[in-house]
Amino acid sequence: MQYKELNVESVLEFIQNIDSVKEYFGLDELNVAEIGDGNLNYVYIVKSKQNPKKALILKQAVEYLRCVGQEYALSRERMSFEIRALKKFYEYLPSFVPKIYYENEDMSLVIMQYLDQHIIMRKGLIAKTVYPNFSEHISTYLAATLFYTSSLYLQSDKKRKLIDRFNKNTELCKLSEDFVFTTAYMEHDTNDNENVKSNKHAKKLFEDMEFKTKILNLKYKFMTQTDCLLHGDLHTGSIMLNKDETYVIDPEFAFVGPFGFDIGALIANLVNNYIHHSVVTKDEEFKKYLLKTIKEVLELFEKKFLELWNKQKESALLVNGFLDEDSLNSFKSEFMKNILRDSIGFSGAKIARRVFGVAGVEDIRGIKDKDLREEAEVLALKIAREFVMKYENLKSVDEVLEIIKNAR
Amino acid sequence: MQYKELNVESVLEFIQNIDSVKEYFGLDELNVAEIGDGNLNYVYIVKSKQNPKKALILKQAVEYLRCVGQEYALSRERMSFEIRALKKFYEYLPSFVPKIYYENEDMSLVIMQYLDQHIIMRKGLIAKTVYPNFSEHISTYLAATLFYTSSLYLQSDKKRKLIDRFNKNTELCKLSEDFVFTTAYMEHDTNDNENVKSNKHAKKLFEDMEFKTKILNLKYKFMTQTDCLLHGDLHTGSIMLNKDETYVIDPEFAFVGPFGFDIGALIANLVNNYIHHSVVTKDEEFKKYLLKTIKEVLELFEKKFLELWNKQKESALLVNGFLDEDSLNSFKSEFMKNILRDSIGFSGAKIARRVFGVAGVEDIRGIKDKDLREEAEVLALKIAREFVMKYENLKSVDEVLEIIKNAR
Repeated sequence: MQYKELNVESVLEFIQNIDSVKEYFGLDELNVAEIGDGNLNYVYIVKSKQNPKKALILKQAVEYLRCVGQEYALSRERMSFEIRALKKFYEYLPSFVPKIYYENEDMSLVIMQYLDQHIIMRKGLIAKTVYPNFSEHISTYLAATLFYTSSLYLQSDKKRKLIDRFNKNTELCKLSEDFVFTTAYMEHDTNDNENVKSNKHAKKLFEDMEFKTKILNLKYKFMTQTDCLLHGDLHTGSIMLNKDETYVIDPEFAFVGPFGFDIGALIANLVNNYIHHSVVTKDEEFKKYLLKTIKEVLELFEKKFLELWNKQKESALLVNGFLDEDSLNSFKSEFMKNILRDSIGFSGAKIARRVFGVAGVEDIRGIKDKDLREEAEVLALKIAREFVMKYENLKSVDEVLEIIKNAR
Repeated sequence: MQYKELNVESVLEFIQNIDSVKEYFGLDELNVAEIGDGNLNYVYIVKSKQNPKKALILKQAVEYLRCVGQEYALSRERMSFEIRALKKFYEYLPSFVPKIYYENEDMSLVIMQYLDQHIIMRKGLIAKTVYPNFSEHISTYLAATLFYTSSLYLQSDKKRKLIDRFNKNTELCKLSEDFVFTTAYMEHDTNDNENVKSNKHAKKLFEDMEFKTKILNLKYKFMTQTDCLLHGDLHTGSIMLNKDETYVIDPEFAFVGPFGFDIGALIANLVNNYIHHSVVTKDEEFKKYLLKTIKEVLELFEKKFLELWNKQKESALLVNGFLDEDSLNSFKSEFMKNILRDSIGFSGAKIARRVFGVAGVEDIRGIKDKDLREEAEVLALKIAREFVMKYENLKSVDEVLEIIKNAR
């Protein structure tokens, strides 16, 4: 099929021929509307006129960065990687990934479940919503996606096929290389330059060679460590949830990279929200809830990842009987410690990049009061720096929490 | 072109149509002979009858492991990776890689320069031949192949394309995963079981969980660290040389892996030869020459790699101006130390695997006297163990030499 950019009318026409969509809507008449909240893509909602609760999402990538315009080219092949990642993750986690009704890489298009009972987690957390099942859900998601796509589970031929499917997601990986690990720590056009100019904290950050050397190490790990298939952009804007359900969406940055990257992104965004409430609402209860969540996510992830690993006797890495039980357990325990360490290192980079870099987060950049925003930025830089300078020697989750709590 | 297994007659017919070959031989009549010293492939020599000094090599892969027979399937696609690696390395190092006259991935076939003035390095070293230019040559080769195919030189899109070209060399990577990092340290059919049975040193090795845990870490690094394009099997049997020239051949194991792997393989094989002479000839002069060579290879590699790196201001990893000069130099110096460390770790695995595993080396397994062979094996295991247990904390090349010299 040849690629064609759709609009509201042609979407309606396009879906007439898709069996799974016809089956879903039956004989209902359909409505299409564009819901333009995306930065990168066009997103349409297709609704039954008879029963507006019946709806599907159609998402199509275009050949440019939508939020900037046609002059900022970005190849639409990113949708291929999103489709592949959604399908891969759905395989393991049908309750945490939107159901796909139809996908077409030629058209850079996917049709999927509409999440009408869920909100973007970042907005929920800013509004101080408590999600009692979130740590359970996301730790299950992380343990399964990371383990089942790694050489601790797969045999080498399968692992190499997986790499093959995602290796070419060059452009979006490059965005992370640039924006997470490079330009946010030096003078650059893409930064939040209105704030950066004559900002003493920015100046200090840009001159902090000790910190930037560590960032460079993390960047190198990001570029060359092929542990497992990652979501690649797992911030709280990529999570839709309510008190009962949690969905992870938008894996267009998916690639085979280091274990710690997704966990780090998530922790970073929980920390950003913690900073928001430290400065804006000063709600100690909610801050405690956030710390508890961070602790639970890290600890439950480790527990669940190990459970999956303990069930797996043979893999690319391990042949049954190679190590005795005690040695194998020590090996695994050290392996998990290294995942924790890398997660916190990446987390530090993910926090720091949001302060002055392109694409800030609402939790911090959205703070209207200039002084409060500065206070939040300083706090973010402090925690980020502690994470990045100390991650290699961390021994426990509690040390991570101490860093967050003690920063001021 | 459809694949067809050639023989002496059809080789002659096949080459009639190749321009570069016709150009090379002119109107000479040609002779074809099979020189069957390979384990994996068929190798033919095509010679001018008028001038026997004029000759080319034709190498074709078959669908099985030649030394075992048709029942041991091994896909002939390995030749595609050999061709790609030869061409890539030749790009940077025309004086160290045989010239290719013709290549055909469909036919799993390559026609290349005949090295008639050179011998396999392993044989040269066993015969106590001194190669005065070897360290200079191989350090240039290693620095260039490793640097120019890494993210310290390439931009990300080029690096990902490189990974794409070699990622599917699954089968030969799997051979290394199995034989270098797994089966040589446990009871296994493929081991040298005549020797292993009731061998107390084998028993000790197979039960050495501390050592095997470190081996497992190295295996994981081998499988998941995509630093640069490697030869993949750089032992002294993959080097043909004389006093003036050095050629690296047979890169069918080529893949994108950790910096230290090729260096480690080479050092391991120099150490194996050192062990041979420690036990068999006891020639102290030649042993000194070998130690000097090891030192020079490691030190010159670092020097030349850094020279290339210092000329390169921008790459996937580095953006000009990200770090100040002092910090950048410290970063590079630490980076080089890590390459040295990993090289010695891999070297330890490469030495240990040759003791009881499949495919021993002539330097040690070729020792006829049973007691002397045992002595060599014990020495190999000692050095290997020191390398593997200590590699992570090595600070200098001299420490490596101390380990070798002090082992007995």
